[in-house]
Amino acid sequence: MSVAPAIPANGSLEERARRALDQKTKPPGSLGVLEEVAVRLAGIQQTLAPVLSVKRLCVFAGSHGITAEGVSAYPGSVTAQMVLNFLAGGAAINVLARHGNIGVHVIDVGVDGEWPAGLENTPHFFIRKVRAGTRNTLREPAMTSAECDQALEAGREQVRQAVADGVQVLGLGEMGIGNTTAAAALYCGLLGFDPVAAVGRGTGVSEAGLRRKVEVVEGILRRHAPGDALGEGAGRYWLESVGGYEMAAMTGCILEARALRLPVVVDGFISTAAAAAAFDLDPASREVCFFSHRSEEAAHGAALKALRVEPLLDLKMRLGEGTGAALAMHVLEAAAKILCEMATFESAGVSDAAEAAGASSPAACL
Amino acid sequence: MSVAPAIPANGSLEERARRALDQKTKPPGSLGVLEEVAVRLAGIQQTLAPVLSVKRLCVFAGSHGITAEGVSAYPGSVTAQMVLNFLAGGAAINVLARHGNIGVHVIDVGVDGEWPAGLENTPHFFIRKVRAGTRNTLREPAMTSAECDQALEAGREQVRQAVADGVQVLGLGEMGIGNTTAAAALYCGLLGFDPVAAVGRGTGVSEAGLRRKVEVVEGILRRHAPGDALGEGAGRYWLESVGGYEMAAMTGCILEARALRLPVVVDGFISTAAAAAAFDLDPASREVCFFSHRSEEAAHGAALKALRVEPLLDLKMRLGEGTGAALAMHVLEAAAKILCEMATFESAGVSDAAEAAGASSPAACL
Repeated sequence: MSVAPAIPANGSLEERARRALDQKTKPPGSLGVLEEVAVRLAGIQQTLAPVLSVKRLCVFAGSHGITAEGVSAYPGSVTAQMVLNFLAGGAAINVLARHGNIGVHVIDVGVDGEWPAGLENTPHFFIRKVRAGTRNTLREPAMTSAECDQALEAGREQVRQAVADGVQVLGLGEMGIGNTTAAAALYCGLLGFDPVAAVGRGTGVSEAGLRRKVEVVEGILRRHAPGDALGEGAGRYWLESVGGYEMAAMTGCILEARALRLPVVVDGFISTAAAAAAFDLDPASREVCFFSHRSEEAAHGAALKALRVEPLLDLKMRLGEGTGAALAMHVLEAAAKILCEMATFESAGVSDAAEAAGASSPAACL
Repeated sequence: MSVAPAIPANGSLEERARRALDQKTKPPGSLGVLEEVAVRLAGIQQTLAPVLSVKRLCVFAGSHGITAEGVSAYPGSVTAQMVLNFLAGGAAINVLARHGNIGVHVIDVGVDGEWPAGLENTPHFFIRKVRAGTRNTLREPAMTSAECDQALEAGREQVRQAVADGVQVLGLGEMGIGNTTAAAALYCGLLGFDPVAAVGRGTGVSEAGLRRKVEVVEGILRRHAPGDALGEGAGRYWLESVGGYEMAAMTGCILEARALRLPVVVDGFISTAAAAAAFDLDPASREVCFFSHRSEEAAHGAALKALRVEPLLDLKMRLGEGTGAALAMHVLEAAAKILCEMATFESAGVSDAAEAAGASSPAACL
């Protein structure tokens, strides 16, 4: 990003962006959510000309000990197989990222599996394996405190690298068979959801599988019920007790993105759970988060509501990987361009509304 | 993309596309609306490898005699001014079309105004002026039957040219101060809406302006109440009586697109009214239409419901010009690419779900 020009002193960047939008050749507010997004981007990047042309998506992969309980329609080995698919460019997220001109980083933060020799040299692949999968949370905490720190740091590292590389918006994605179970438990712990409401079909378990999944989440919550009120440490407690390495890494991303003022696009059910933990650890981190879509995974709509955020899209997707984030980045960039590229009533010689006659001179795009 | 293996001959293209999607490395159905769109595109283009890389958006502009009744927040002269803004590249639709790599055609089908000398030589600008604006529909029909034919033909011509130019998906947009009033009257005539329910704020009229607009639409409907049941001619009757040249042109687009199997992306309140007329004239024309977004214009949601169609986006936009269509084209093209570019479980060496074990061999993309 170029050095910011001097900004006139009247009002916050958000207020000035709003005024600038009202001078564009359109009825005030008529671009709806695009205008709201543009105003937020102006605030985050501290400029009336936000730019989101350099886009990256980080897919964090981790295995889950809870898969031993038969909570998924797919075997746990699929997590490692899908990482290879990401690296070969054949997964849904590769297709959508190429479509949106978004670079993809794949980060192994805890995949249970041996990589073929030489795979570590694959461009944009990062082996930051904390452990070969979390522990079975029916019996013990998912991870130690040191492991949680390591996973958080793997996320923070990606944000620092993104900023160093000139990335202007970062999408979050994940892969981890079993992680809808872990995320459901996280929602129960963090937001007080009931297991029956928090559990959905994930990759597509049967009716019997769904009942089993609810029982497992109930068991996890019994095992990790805190003795005392958690207070401010709740996010950290639940992340360590019932979460996953990929979730902790995404939480780390959001925390670091807030520190470095990088807009972050949250994907679906799993990454929203990571956002819930981040908001608990640093409430101000919500300022840099955009929620891409409402997943079909049953509890996602309720989770977004509980976090008081509105998603940009609702395309009945439930795949994860960052697929919703990749699509939504197109909308975010469109919003930035509206603020930067549209003509004003004055510059285009278009008559403003009768009501707006005599308004102040148009704000210009820096 | 690699060369495709032969396609098994059993089933329609839609059925085969569905099977191909179920072999991709994702839980069946997990890409939601993208999968439904991909299946429809396979049917329209009659291929398992639909391609939407060449995209165009046609913005039809027309003036409205009804503006004499003070139904808009903007003077009628803004229609011509905005056409100049489109040609200069400064309007919202220009920004979003550039962002989506979409070519823009601007067609004057009935703008009240003189163009500067030489403007007719502007690339991608087509002067097909039927008349300098429709008549005031409180007093007489908007257009004659011959004029309606001429406007329909202006739309059909654009579709023929698009197909000849290799365009693979066509978006519809419009500009016409006063046209939310005309469209509201069209919805009342075609779909039986009540004026109070059909009328919204358009570009942003005041509370008093809204009441005035309802009265005007009530007056228009009284003036044009048909003596006899209209039956199959209803679409044509209402288009001529209360519509606009830009709406008739978009209706012509949809009819011709159906004949030539070109996917069409409908924008918001005005272009959906044109679609309603097209569906009345040729019910099969709905097969090529994709509805881009739910506009904030009050009655648009009800209109989509009455037409039994689901929009792709809901971004609280209410600008028109094709802005919703431009954004939605990114989603449509993404859907096509999912079908063409994603790996299958077999090709990627990923284990399928336990439930799907022993499924038939994967369908391949052409």
